[in-house]
Amino acid sequence: MADAAEPTVISGPQELRAAVLAARGRGRRVGFVPTMGALHAGHVSLVERAAADCDDVAVSIFVNPTQFGPHEDFTRYPRTPESDLALLTGGRVRWVFAPHADDIYPPGWCTRITVDGPARGLEGELRPGHFSGVATVVCRLFMAVPADAAYFGAKDWQQTLVVRRMVRDLGLPIEVVVCPTVREPDGLAMSSRNAYLAPGDRQRATAMWESLEVAARAWDAGQASSAIERLMRGHLESRGVVVEYAAVVDAESLDAVRPGAEARALVAGRLGATRLIDNRPLPPRQAGGG
Amino acid sequence: MADAAEPTVISGPQELRAAVLAARGRGRRVGFVPTMGALHAGHVSLVERAAADCDDVAVSIFVNPTQFGPHEDFTRYPRTPESDLALLTGGRVRWVFAPHADDIYPPGWCTRITVDGPARGLEGELRPGHFSGVATVVCRLFMAVPADAAYFGAKDWQQTLVVRRMVRDLGLPIEVVVCPTVREPDGLAMSSRNAYLAPGDRQRATAMWESLEVAARAWDAGQASSAIERLMRGHLESRGVVVEYAAVVDAESLDAVRPGAEARALVAGRLGATRLIDNRPLPPRQAGGG
Repeated sequence: MADAAEPTVISGPQELRAAVLAARGRGRRVGFVPTMGALHAGHVSLVERAAADCDDVAVSIFVNPTQFGPHEDFTRYPRTPESDLALLTGGRVRWVFAPHADDIYPPGWCTRITVDGPARGLEGELRPGHFSGVATVVCRLFMAVPADAAYFGAKDWQQTLVVRRMVRDLGLPIEVVVCPTVREPDGLAMSSRNAYLAPGDRQRATAMWESLEVAARAWDAGQASSAIERLMRGHLESRGVVVEYAAVVDAESLDAVRPGAEARALVAGRLGATRLIDNRPLPPRQAGGG
Repeated sequence: MADAAEPTVISGPQELRAAVLAARGRGRRVGFVPTMGALHAGHVSLVERAAADCDDVAVSIFVNPTQFGPHEDFTRYPRTPESDLALLTGGRVRWVFAPHADDIYPPGWCTRITVDGPARGLEGELRPGHFSGVATVVCRLFMAVPADAAYFGAKDWQQTLVVRRMVRDLGLPIEVVVCPTVREPDGLAMSSRNAYLAPGDRQRATAMWESLEVAARAWDAGQASSAIERLMRGHLESRGVVVEYAAVVDAESLDAVRPGAEARALVAGRLGATRLIDNRPLPPRQAGGG
């Protein structure tokens, strides 16, 4: 079968589910990339990875209200449907799932999924209810798009842990694939929220990535987590970032680092009204530090 | 294909999932009856209904720890695996799913589903966490047994509302079929917990069903919900039942009855250490009462 040049836009979950199951029934492997739209090169890399692994790709575009807090940016979150669709045309994207809010949250909706464990600290602490909103919508999307595999970006590292835990705990029949963060040439992680940044803040935003590089060097030099966290925080503050957290933790549990296990450096901060997050892996080492 | 006389007992969720999907791929309709074992004529009626509707039937037997409160009867809940299996032999039950606790709740398990709305009052109020445990395990079981339809008994009326709401809200791809309560000749609703009753309490337990008949007569006579609830409570107390609730409510929302909508009478009470519940429908009527 030839690659579809124009994806089919579907809003009905049942219609899409039937189409995906029919494709799989014909032996085609289906990949799924859930997004909130405002697509950028990071999303495109997920789609390309899915296309490389699979015969057909489904991309969902849904700005999910339940993962935004009451004072967060749900209403002003960028919505760029025309350019999103243009970006998804000409490749192996066969379906674009663009549900209405009522398709995902029917009248009287009152069912939530909550994950503890990896959802507890960092983003989970600063954004109460965020990961419950994420887990709930991802499960709902997985039911509408019963793909073989779903592709998530490592930029939202804690989110990938939450989704993987939910998938394992509920036995959701899908493989979760985590793909590397895509960066601007100066190191800033691609994010739909980068569009909010005023020009001066855009320049200072490289401090996020730089602080992770600082962490990696200090980690390689054998420094303790707490010392590395101070270095990261210091670098961010020196560039005018209001730090929300700067953490060096076990990559899977987000608890204290363990000797011999992969760790992760994670940062969150604000520049003006824009909230940014980033993270990077730290390879296993024997002296865990504290 | 001939009916299987002996069901295949499977403990691995993935193995069962593959078997069910293979059967459905051959065009067979699959029905699923989730149980906690200690099977009685009520369960058998669910299996018979599933067998009448479907080509193959899966029955799960799993005493789910997360739906029991800390002071409830999880450890002493009756477990009768041999007689359960005997009851499921010779019919159309093709698979018995008997998972180990670790198959359902893997180490580090931390994902829960909570339903608000119909889960709020009655059992939900008296048994905090109960319906979250039910919703979570039912979702997990549905992933292991991707059947066309699942069969639940109306005796656990509120549970059927919670499961139906979860299925709708998360878009779980299964039909929920609610089957009538099966009763002993004297009216007592079949329940695995009836085995707990001391002989004298067993006689008094008919008060549960009688109180529902009292309610139905008063409902037909046009009495208000609150008056009917007092009548039910009075009857139960006169027979020595410690009443936990006696409610006449809207059958779907469990809120106040609405003119023209089906209502439901529900009771819960204790006889000795045994907790019993029961319910019955009340047909729509114009004078709702209050």
